[in-house]
Amino acid sequence: MRARDLAVEYESVTVDSDALDAARLMAEHRLPGLLVLDAVGTPKAILPASQLVKVLVPPYVIEDPNLAAVVDEQHADRLASALQGRRVGDCLPRSFPEPPIAAPDDTALEVAALMARARSPLVAVCERDKAGLRLLGVITASHLLNRLLAVAS
Amino acid sequence: MRARDLAVEYESVTVDSDALDAARLMAEHRLPGLLVLDAVGTPKAILPASQLVKVLVPPYVIEDPNLAAVVDEQHADRLASALQGRRVGDCLPRSFPEPPIAAPDDTALEVAALMARARSPLVAVCERDKAGLRLLGVITASHLLNRLLAVAS
Repeated sequence: MRARDLAVEYESVTVDSDALDAARLMAEHRLPGLLVLDAVGTPKAILPASQLVKVLVPPYVIEDPNLAAVVDEQHADRLASALQGRRVGDCLPRSFPEPPIAAPDDTALEVAALMARARSPLVAVCERDKAGLRLLGVITASHLLNRLLAVAS
Repeated sequence: MRARDLAVEYESVTVDSDALDAARLMAEHRLPGLLVLDAVGTPKAILPASQLVKVLVPPYVIEDPNLAAVVDEQHADRLASALQGRRVGDCLPRSFPEPPIAAPDDTALEVAALMARARSPLVAVCERDKAGLRLLGVITASHLLNRLLAVAS
């Protein structure tokens, strides 16, 4: 079993995607995160849903927990404005790990070792062509666990 | 909207649960992680699926990527033995953040601020009773995003 056979489609956006659309995508499909591609389609980051929650909450509320309790629910309708007009690239944390990238012919164990080293919830499987790295799909940790345990049982 | 109304059931195990059962639970339900409770039911850790992948892969393979390529698929059937006889508590990384805990009456914005500070994929909602903290449910980042954006639209 090779990485190309393990890879499945996964919701992705680009650094130039609308941040509010990305948040809605995660919210509607209950995704823990999205894969973020750069302008040429190379995996650049994993954007966790908690990071968009962080962007939504005004910084003075994050810093002062007591304030969060007294901002009333009506003001919450202004939260989404924090995402309006912003791109996904603007919402990434200042430093973020690049997603680990496996080659199509890597074995399941190579993918597992890569994931373990990076402590990443997913590995992107990419093929190299003339334009650079082209995304074939993604292998999540739970999918890989499933595969490794199936072989074992 | 209060934390108690936002909280939903979430797959959880205890530190004494069988590690192989926990891995199978994540694998079958394609969960990115599990909530780990201590012996009295208080949330203690979030166990990401990638951590169990790490436990499955022999340390010499993690350290030497070239070895991973040459260990053949047949040997993969020995991987699950790394989990056999181990408890979930044995599989936690040496240091791990405790899951953030919200009170039932916390507002959605308080939960969001807590999640943002902890950069956590979920917040546990607990009620305090005589025995300690009792888990009512969990609020995931994508569920909270859904709620915050619904208020906003």
